[in-house]
Amino acid sequence: MPTQAIGWGTDAPDQPLKPIRFERRDLRPNDVAIRITHAGICHSDLHTCRNDWRGSKYPVVPGHEIVGTVTAVGDEVTRHQVGDTVAVGCMVDSCMECDQCLEGWEVFCRKGSVQTYNSADYHDGTITKGGYTDHIVVRDHFVLKVPDGMDVTRVAPLLCAGITTYSPLRQYDVGTGTKVAVVGLGGLGHMGVKLAAAMGAHVTMITTTPSKGEDARELGAHDVIISTDKAQMKAARTRFDFILNTIPVSHPIDPYLQLLGRSGRMVIVGALMEMPPFTGGNLIMWNRAVGGSAIGGIPETQEMLDFCAAKDIYPEVETIRMDEVNDAYERLLRNDVRYRFVIDMSTLEQPAE
Amino acid sequence: MPTQAIGWGTDAPDQPLKPIRFERRDLRPNDVAIRITHAGICHSDLHTCRNDWRGSKYPVVPGHEIVGTVTAVGDEVTRHQVGDTVAVGCMVDSCMECDQCLEGWEVFCRKGSVQTYNSADYHDGTITKGGYTDHIVVRDHFVLKVPDGMDVTRVAPLLCAGITTYSPLRQYDVGTGTKVAVVGLGGLGHMGVKLAAAMGAHVTMITTTPSKGEDARELGAHDVIISTDKAQMKAARTRFDFILNTIPVSHPIDPYLQLLGRSGRMVIVGALMEMPPFTGGNLIMWNRAVGGSAIGGIPETQEMLDFCAAKDIYPEVETIRMDEVNDAYERLLRNDVRYRFVIDMSTLEQPAE
Repeated sequence: MPTQAIGWGTDAPDQPLKPIRFERRDLRPNDVAIRITHAGICHSDLHTCRNDWRGSKYPVVPGHEIVGTVTAVGDEVTRHQVGDTVAVGCMVDSCMECDQCLEGWEVFCRKGSVQTYNSADYHDGTITKGGYTDHIVVRDHFVLKVPDGMDVTRVAPLLCAGITTYSPLRQYDVGTGTKVAVVGLGGLGHMGVKLAAAMGAHVTMITTTPSKGEDARELGAHDVIISTDKAQMKAARTRFDFILNTIPVSHPIDPYLQLLGRSGRMVIVGALMEMPPFTGGNLIMWNRAVGGSAIGGIPETQEMLDFCAAKDIYPEVETIRMDEVNDAYERLLRNDVRYRFVIDMSTLEQPAE
Repeated sequence: MPTQAIGWGTDAPDQPLKPIRFERRDLRPNDVAIRITHAGICHSDLHTCRNDWRGSKYPVVPGHEIVGTVTAVGDEVTRHQVGDTVAVGCMVDSCMECDQCLEGWEVFCRKGSVQTYNSADYHDGTITKGGYTDHIVVRDHFVLKVPDGMDVTRVAPLLCAGITTYSPLRQYDVGTGTKVAVVGLGGLGHMGVKLAAAMGAHVTMITTTPSKGEDARELGAHDVIISTDKAQMKAARTRFDFILNTIPVSHPIDPYLQLLGRSGRMVIVGALMEMPPFTGGNLIMWNRAVGGSAIGGIPETQEMLDFCAAKDIYPEVETIRMDEVNDAYERLLRNDVRYRFVIDMSTLEQPAE
C-alpha cells in the first residue's frame, strides 16, 4: 500500500515552498523506507524550485542531503535493518548493469541515474520527491550507513557537499604534505578545507573576502590568499599541487591555473556553465591540467562517511525549522549561511507558535 | 679559441634565410662540440624567423632538432666522447640547481632554461644559434646519446616532435589497451600515433581530412574519426581514455572533451594561445580533465630516444638540401609535408648545380 507523505515543496517557479501532501510508493522487494530526521539545504534545491536550470516538474519537493531511520525494508533487503541510522544523497536509483554502475560510479550510469528529486522513477514514471519530507522510499543500494556514534544533526550536508569535495581530493591522491588550495568558502569550500586538512594536506584558502580568510583558518586552513590582491596572487604562482575550485559561477580560470606548480591539477566542482576563454600556455607550461568532478559514486560516498566518522569531521551547520525554509533560501541567495542549513524534520508538523 | 661557424638564418622578419657566418664559443670545461649532420625543421623555426611570437633577435639561426657527431669535449666532460653520435633538442642550458632541474625537468628551470636558438647564454649573453649550422657547442648535460644502430638520417625530429608527444603519453600512463585518440596529423600528431601504438594503446586518429585518415592507418592508427562528421563524433562520445591534442591554433575544446570517458584526460601540446570559451559541465560530467604538456626534461628525452631505438620508431621525414629551406618553409605553411623536413647538413656548403 502506498503511504501518505507530507513535505514542503513548491507548485511553480515563483511560489514559496509550502506543505504538500503526496504518496510514497509501496515497498518493492529491494526498497528501504526511511523516516527522515534531518535534511540539508543545497543550492540545487533552490535552483530546481525556481526552475533556474529548466526542466523542473512541479510540484517540486527538494532535498538530497537526507538522514533518517529505517522503518521498513523490502523482502530482498539484507544490507539494512529496521532501526538503522541511514542516509541518502543525490541519487536513488541507476541501472546497476552498465560498466559505470558495476564499477561503483552510479553517478555516470549509462541509462542515467535517477535523481533524488525532480527525476522520473524507472518503474512507474512518477517524479521523485526529495528529503524535505517526513519519509522516503529508496532502493537499498542507494541507502548509505551512518556510522555508529556520529552526530546525526550534522551529517546531512556530507551527502552532497561532503562527497562532492571528498571525491576529487581522493581522485587526485591528496594526502600528507600535498599543497592544496581551496577557492571559495561556501558549503562546498568549507568541507574542502576540513577534508583536505584531515587528509594531511597543507591547505590554503583563496577567497575574495578577508573576513572569510579568518573563518577558513578556524576551519583548519593553514594559510589564506586574498584573490583580489594581485601581489599575493603573483607571489603564489606555481605554489600548489592541487586546487579545489568551488566557485559556482562562470569565471576566468587563468589566474588560478598560474598558481599550480609542475603537474599541478585544478578541479572545478561548482561551475557547470560556459566558462570564459583561457590561455593554452597556462596548461602547457608546467604540464598543468584543469578537470571537473561530479558528486561521487555510492561506494565512495560510504567511504566518505566512514572517513568523516573516523576523523570526527562535520560540516558547520545552522539547524532550522521546516517553516523557516523560505527565509533560508533568501539567506542562501545572499550567501548568509555558515555554511549549510539543515532542517530538523521533527518540526515538519509543528508550526511555530 | 672561438671557431668560425656557417649556417643559414635570417636578418629580419621579412627576409628569406641565407648563409650566415658567425662565431661559436671556445669550449668551456663542461662543453661538447658537435659537427651537425642533420637538422629537423619545426614550425617554431619559421615562427621565430618571422617574429610571429615577438622577441626574435636577429640574425636568427634556427633549428632545435639536431643530430651530429662529437668533435671535441671540455676538460670536465665524461658523459660524451669524440666520435659519439649525439643529439640536441630545444634546450642547451639551465641552472641545474633549482628543484625543477634537480628533478629532471630542466624545461621548467626557475631561472629559465636557455633555448637552443634566440635565447641569451647565461655566461656571455650572446644569443644562441641553432642547428641549421655546421657545428654547435653545447653544455654536456643537454647533449643526448643517440643509441647505437639508429638511422641517424631520421632521428632529428624526435628531439622536438618526438619528446613533445612522448612526454604526455608517459605522464598519463598510456599503455596496453589504453583507448587513445590523436587529434591532428602533422609533425606532432604522426609521432603521437606511432608512439601511442608502440606503447600498446588502441589508437584513433581524429582529423578533418578523410585522406589523412588513411595515412594515419598506415602510421599505425587502428581507427579514424572525421571530426567534421557530426554523427561520427556523437557516436564516439565517452569512448576515449586519453586524447593527445596536437592542434596548433586556437580551437573549441568542448567537442573533444565530450569524447572522453570517465576520468578521461585530454592534453594540449600545440595551442599556446587564447582558447575560446568551454563548458564547465563537460569537465564535471565524467570527471574529465584537460591539460597541457611542454616538450620534456633531459632524462625523459633520453628515455624517449632509447624507447624509439628499442621499438624501431622513426618519424616520417623528407630530407632536403640546406638551400631548399625557404621552399620548405612555404610548404610548411601549406601543411605540405609528410611529416617532417630534415636538412642534410652535408649540403650546407655544396650549392645545388
